[in-house]
Amino acid sequence: MAPAPGGPLARLSLNTATTKAWTLQEALDGAARGGLGAVGLWRDRVQEAGLDKAARLVEASGLRVSSLCRGGFLTAADDAGSAHALADNRAAIVEAATLGTRELVLVVGGLPASSAPGGPALPYPAATPDADPARDVVAARARVADRIADLVPYAAEHDVRLVLEPLHPVFAADRAVISTLGQALDLAAPFPAQTVGVVVDTYHVWWDPDLERQIARAGAEGRIASYQVSDWTLPLAADALLSRGHVGDGHIDFATITRWVAATGYTGDIEVEIFHQGIWDTPGDQTVATLAERYIRHVLPHLG
Amino acid sequence: MAPAPGGPLARLSLNTATTKAWTLQEALDGAARGGLGAVGLWRDRVQEAGLDKAARLVEASGLRVSSLCRGGFLTAADDAGSAHALADNRAAIVEAATLGTRELVLVVGGLPASSAPGGPALPYPAATPDADPARDVVAARARVADRIADLVPYAAEHDVRLVLEPLHPVFAADRAVISTLGQALDLAAPFPAQTVGVVVDTYHVWWDPDLERQIARAGAEGRIASYQVSDWTLPLAADALLSRGHVGDGHIDFATITRWVAATGYTGDIEVEIFHQGIWDTPGDQTVATLAERYIRHVLPHLG
Repeated sequence: MAPAPGGPLARLSLNTATTKAWTLQEALDGAARGGLGAVGLWRDRVQEAGLDKAARLVEASGLRVSSLCRGGFLTAADDAGSAHALADNRAAIVEAATLGTRELVLVVGGLPASSAPGGPALPYPAATPDADPARDVVAARARVADRIADLVPYAAEHDVRLVLEPLHPVFAADRAVISTLGQALDLAAPFPAQTVGVVVDTYHVWWDPDLERQIARAGAEGRIASYQVSDWTLPLAADALLSRGHVGDGHIDFATITRWVAATGYTGDIEVEIFHQGIWDTPGDQTVATLAERYIRHVLPHLG
Repeated sequence: MAPAPGGPLARLSLNTATTKAWTLQEALDGAARGGLGAVGLWRDRVQEAGLDKAARLVEASGLRVSSLCRGGFLTAADDAGSAHALADNRAAIVEAATLGTRELVLVVGGLPASSAPGGPALPYPAATPDADPARDVVAARARVADRIADLVPYAAEHDVRLVLEPLHPVFAADRAVISTLGQALDLAAPFPAQTVGVVVDTYHVWWDPDLERQIARAGAEGRIASYQVSDWTLPLAADALLSRGHVGDGHIDFATITRWVAATGYTGDIEVEIFHQGIWDTPGDQTVATLAERYIRHVLPHLG
């Protein structure tokens, strides 16, 4: 029998990426069985079910949708790439609204593709060394700002918030040219807080010497759209993307960061999104039980 | 026959870690043969030769010593660990002075060892979750500040500069709790610029959205003690520490960063320190030739 709603896990959210083997229905059932109050949805699970059916399943579950993952990938340097990204993000905005969440997480994309990096040394013309868009992170960031401006009106119409996720700098080249919470807030600054927000994901930001100040700033601006918890474990996995661990298994000080977030007055969900082969190979109910146990041990006592 | 001194490579410095198989004498000979103006020395190569002999070899080579690597590892939470670190850093200060360089690079150390991280989930008491020094990065940084203050008088007596190296945040847990140039400059601020400086190492700082501003600040304060160049390549090596590439093989925009450094008026050496198994397996003279070719192509045109 499921724990009563409003119990200690009422603010805990299961991101469907954490229990990758589960369908949407299985994830909703598993989260409810575990007593969690919410789920974070990846678009692949939603698309498998079909958007309208997914929305009905979510509604029937009684769970909140803490966020939809993900839009983004806005750094294309060519018109076709930009147009494709805008179309995909508009679709994601509609999906978020249909699923009943305001929070659409954006992973903004890394440096655009190039023929140069990756393989053995490939000479390229010294005469134009600064004209290579594949290395120009400053220009890539400027394009992110432009694409956000393009999307804001559509997001506002649908009452959806574009939620900028700073990713750990280990992903700056290939996944996100937003690397710090302060940078995300600077990009959000021209827009209303109800239309552009930020994620505070411990895995990505724990190392930042400016973190306490930027969390306070994000809270004061009303832009904290999601607080996500997973741990930094070493050694890194061969695929750095799959290197996260359960809360408590690594090096992150959840007590301190959680208190900083709570001090802003944040009352939203706390989402757990872990990419990790070993966790994916574990039965979902066991993973949910571990999330709950770690949350109660390391996060809940510091939420105030 | 060696190129004439004062040629195009006069400011290029070979760090001995790049040609790991070479002894000190071999590295000095190889750098001179290649026409380079300087070497950066690791302490292991110096200790193999013996300090006094190393100093004589360096003097006979006619090369400058752009830096000595490295001191640091200052984050121990216990008195014995702190005392050990201070003694080791004082020895490194003497070595730098003896070798004729003012610049002693410090890698400040990561979180102190713990019984908790690393292995499978080990429960620890929820009652004191914020008393675990192995996760308290804020306290670890404060200890770094304290140890720098301890070392400054000794460094000043020996006319050696303690050079703080921000490391890429991928190393924040295990190697350096200084992750940004701005943070390094904040730590240096209480001390004279001739006694505490910073490294600008492209590999570690290229991703930083605040980089242009912090390089300008470092230059204005007179604290740029070393400009180091190597490239960020993907995928990461299994050991992230060995993941660097030759300039031009990866994602870093050397044109832009070099212009930022040059704009400060920096006239010091440009050092190449690459940890990479494939490069270590390459004959040293070939590696030096590659350094020179990449430097001439990607760095030198932007030094102004």
